[in-house]
Amino acid sequence: MSEPVSVSKAAALLRSSDNILILTHHYPDGDTLGSGFALCYALRALGKNAGVNCSDSIPDKYGFLYSNIGLAPDFEPDFICAVDTADVKLLGEKLSIYADDIDLCIDHHASNTRFADSLLLIPEYAATAMIIAEVIREMGVVIDLNMATGIYTGIATDTGCFKYSNTTSYTLRMAADMLDLGVNSEIINRAMFDVKSRARVELEKLALESIRFYLNDRCAIMRIMVDMIEKSGAGEDDLEGLAPLSRQIEGVYVGVTMREKTDGSFKVSVRTGNHANASAICAKLGGGGHVRAAGCTIDGPADRAVETVLEAVEAVIG
Amino acid sequence: MSEPVSVSKAAALLRSSDNILILTHHYPDGDTLGSGFALCYALRALGKNAGVNCSDSIPDKYGFLYSNIGLAPDFEPDFICAVDTADVKLLGEKLSIYADDIDLCIDHHASNTRFADSLLLIPEYAATAMIIAEVIREMGVVIDLNMATGIYTGIATDTGCFKYSNTTSYTLRMAADMLDLGVNSEIINRAMFDVKSRARVELEKLALESIRFYLNDRCAIMRIMVDMIEKSGAGEDDLEGLAPLSRQIEGVYVGVTMREKTDGSFKVSVRTGNHANASAICAKLGGGGHVRAAGCTIDGPADRAVETVLEAVEAVIG
Repeated sequence: MSEPVSVSKAAALLRSSDNILILTHHYPDGDTLGSGFALCYALRALGKNAGVNCSDSIPDKYGFLYSNIGLAPDFEPDFICAVDTADVKLLGEKLSIYADDIDLCIDHHASNTRFADSLLLIPEYAATAMIIAEVIREMGVVIDLNMATGIYTGIATDTGCFKYSNTTSYTLRMAADMLDLGVNSEIINRAMFDVKSRARVELEKLALESIRFYLNDRCAIMRIMVDMIEKSGAGEDDLEGLAPLSRQIEGVYVGVTMREKTDGSFKVSVRTGNHANASAICAKLGGGGHVRAAGCTIDGPADRAVETVLEAVEAVIG
Repeated sequence: MSEPVSVSKAAALLRSSDNILILTHHYPDGDTLGSGFALCYALRALGKNAGVNCSDSIPDKYGFLYSNIGLAPDFEPDFICAVDTADVKLLGEKLSIYADDIDLCIDHHASNTRFADSLLLIPEYAATAMIIAEVIREMGVVIDLNMATGIYTGIATDTGCFKYSNTTSYTLRMAADMLDLGVNSEIINRAMFDVKSRARVELEKLALESIRFYLNDRCAIMRIMVDMIEKSGAGEDDLEGLAPLSRQIEGVYVGVTMREKTDGSFKVSVRTGNHANASAICAKLGGGGHVRAAGCTIDGPADRAVETVLEAVEAVIG
């Protein structure tokens, strides 16, 4: 069980260490990576050894986040900080060796399982990167363009470019501060949201075709099967961000994306509007997440998995 | 030729009139409507007669912009103000009766043809709604939730929800101010960007299938043919916002969407990244617009229209 800590306590913990390893969650996204590298730049600005590690390889499109710092930490850490990681399992396989040694976790997921010694948790914030910005300032570091780029990327990623309900005026003003520091939001947003490979476009066509409606059309389920991925030529990068597609359809309260894994199980992503609680649905299936976006993993085969999901959805939306 | 006026002069002109008709452009979007209704609410707050008119019927999804004010102005105007309208032709057929009588135009399109007696033009602003906010404040009106809703909607629409390069820190801070006034950005953004009818989803599938690549894959052309629209069951509302789809593909500098009209001509929308000037391309085809987003109309048949477009694109990107 973690000790809850404030921004200033977290900043003090980081300041008092000299060799800090930052861990992100697996299947890394813009918030965990933006947070991790922004913090890493800040710690290096204080003259410390700092590096970022991730169980998975980092997709090329995030290269701009560490182009001035590099990867591969080469020091012996005396302090380990996980960012944007709600559960120790989300560190993934490679980083599981650190599972019992996390000194600090900085996170915004209300579902955080409190696995770190100290936990700086601000669930009201749209992105962990917003907490990182406050920690950096509290450490007495002036945010530079490298840090601002990470912070902006985290915020933009986790708000769907300021579209989701987690976006507050403070979110927008913090993003504005980052633009004032020279962040090129257009290039970041194009990389995060707009650029699609041809394989991705092909996969989207197949995914749209797979959508079926249930529970008086209030629930839409999209299936991403292994053979569709193969047919489209899509790589791991191309599979991100498909989940909102099913929820976008008029009248749909709950959009479900079921991605078949090679072992026959399904990674389920649930997206909801203001009529349903995605986290409650996924909790019934052994998963968790946010009110509007949550996930879980369930067994196949596909038809049985659909039934399982529908039972959980119906239990929540009635 | 218009007299250029400042925000304070435009505010003074509006304050000195008592019966003000506000005109939007045809095929109305969130910026022209958000600007028009925000201004209308402000003028009514000053005790004036004010109303908004549009040549086309206003799509249902914009109903929230005027739910507290209603449509159909029923007074004799003594002052006519066009908003977000770059050319008198864009007023459309019904409003063309006012073409020679526009007292003031408030706009952010650099290509404005200066058709109004007075022109308040700020091309640096992402949205006309941002100018409207300044005019409202300058008139001495405190922005309320109704006005803030229109202003936010205009800004969100014309920045692609803060994604495009026209988004500055001032843009984000003005949007933040509107959230502080109680704007529900999630509901607006869902209506503007996320909700798709089933017919729209069907049309997107067909549109994605129609994409072909040219000029060493730097140009992608998507065709929206009349028979595709019929097959999908899409209505006019469902046709908005398809243009960015072709530009999103990796390596594409110029994304072109060609929509067949019932007379066999094509409405062409050009979207570019930082490698090409959409306005320059469309200028060669008798159209115009912004650097990253522009449009024109050209004759069919489709294959000839594609050739015409490609000649213009090649002339600009080389």
